[in-house]
Amino acid sequence: MTSTIGVFDSGFGGLTVLRALVQRLPQARFAFLGDTARLPYGSKSRRTIARYAMQSAQFLVQEQQAEFLVIACNTASALALDAIQEAVPVPVLGVIQPGAQSARAASHSGDVLVIATDATVHSHAYAAACQALNLRALEKACPLLVPLVEEGWINHPVTEQVIRVYLDEVTADATAQGLSPDTLVLGCTHYPLLRPLIEHLAPAGISVIDSAESTADTAAQLVGGKSADPDQLTASTTDTEIHCFATDSVEKFERLGSRFLGRPVGKVELIDLGG
Amino acid sequence: MTSTIGVFDSGFGGLTVLRALVQRLPQARFAFLGDTARLPYGSKSRRTIARYAMQSAQFLVQEQQAEFLVIACNTASALALDAIQEAVPVPVLGVIQPGAQSARAASHSGDVLVIATDATVHSHAYAAACQALNLRALEKACPLLVPLVEEGWINHPVTEQVIRVYLDEVTADATAQGLSPDTLVLGCTHYPLLRPLIEHLAPAGISVIDSAESTADTAAQLVGGKSADPDQLTASTTDTEIHCFATDSVEKFERLGSRFLGRPVGKVELIDLGG
Repeated sequence: MTSTIGVFDSGFGGLTVLRALVQRLPQARFAFLGDTARLPYGSKSRRTIARYAMQSAQFLVQEQQAEFLVIACNTASALALDAIQEAVPVPVLGVIQPGAQSARAASHSGDVLVIATDATVHSHAYAAACQALNLRALEKACPLLVPLVEEGWINHPVTEQVIRVYLDEVTADATAQGLSPDTLVLGCTHYPLLRPLIEHLAPAGISVIDSAESTADTAAQLVGGKSADPDQLTASTTDTEIHCFATDSVEKFERLGSRFLGRPVGKVELIDLGG
Repeated sequence: MTSTIGVFDSGFGGLTVLRALVQRLPQARFAFLGDTARLPYGSKSRRTIARYAMQSAQFLVQEQQAEFLVIACNTASALALDAIQEAVPVPVLGVIQPGAQSARAASHSGDVLVIATDATVHSHAYAAACQALNLRALEKACPLLVPLVEEGWINHPVTEQVIRVYLDEVTADATAQGLSPDTLVLGCTHYPLLRPLIEHLAPAGISVIDSAESTADTAAQLVGGKSADPDQLTASTTDTEIHCFATDSVEKFERLGSRFLGRPVGKVELIDLGG
């Protein structure tokens, strides 16, 4: 199969989703767009996020002939999935629904915690997706985690302290609401880089769910690629064709992007979406 | 005097400059624009920052009839002052030059530290402005301070720890370069909210300079307003006419803005710069 899969994020974080996609669909061609001139989306309004996301989606479909789109950004998935689906004539998959489905599979108590950006939390998209699966979700905005990841403080004592503050707050809220959460969803594509620290600091008995992995599983099923067989995920993916585009500072993208993709991102092309 | 002074920032931080301006020019009319849909500028490229800043400046001059512009954003001042001056037919004042002049007045050793965003530091605008005044400046990027202020962690132990890390690093660098800094410039309009903490944590004998204050002094001199006589600064400014505009999320602007302006910002009008 040689079809193009378009992957879109406001920045670099979505490269964690691209990484998981490449492992499952190594024969596909990928076009990744980071709308870095206008990041972060996480602190902006629905109207603005939808406008930016639609322009980005149209670029991938019209200019890059993407036949399938993955919105590798929780904020855009939470606030603009409908708008994007209306704006382009190809199937569009967001990260919220797969994340909620993985939480459903993992949770015994039926109570889950979701950590995400301000905008994702205020949209209550995870709460709605979880409720549809008969899960109760408590959402917690963690606006400092993205800047900490972008500063490269992945294993820094400050990051540990910040995660501790956020987890203490959400755990206290859960107790106050009579919830018994056993699952924590990483509701932002930057957070997988903090997964070891979050798993270390989370209360005992909490499973951590990375929506990048579950989104890639769903995408692979939809486009008929490889299964998520762990043995297959170790297959070489260095030959997979990946084209990266950014709306700002390709140098920074090239420098930071490899941290998320787990390999060099190669040459990044600067594009102008008119914003 | 009833002329309009336009004040521009990528977000809310510039309201610290507006606050200082209102104290000195209570009879002027102020139009403040926060380009909140595209913030933060501090992590973006020169080309993108210049494009955004020119659109914002043109709005204030063409739509709000501003006769004098203050770029209340260190990043835009550092990377786009020339571009803005070419784009509009009115005098334009940035925050870098006044900040450097205050540092010159405060420093005995001739060595100063400047803390700022990534983009401001990489532009080396402060180093150049200081060098022209025969000062040696060591610039330090502190990208976590803006998110911490926006999270409202003004007196938080985490913020204290982050400031300590940054100050330790820049002090060690200064020592390694044989500098003896006695002055620290707050090179970002968010940082005045952290001034008490920064003054508490800075090494003994370091004076902290707030470029908001020095910019307002310079603007007042240029437009012929009141002097910076401290007695006059206590005069009531509640009647001063202030119109605020934002490109995104006026609710958030109204909610957070008062923290920076030191009084309610009033009704904020949403505008579209086409981005």
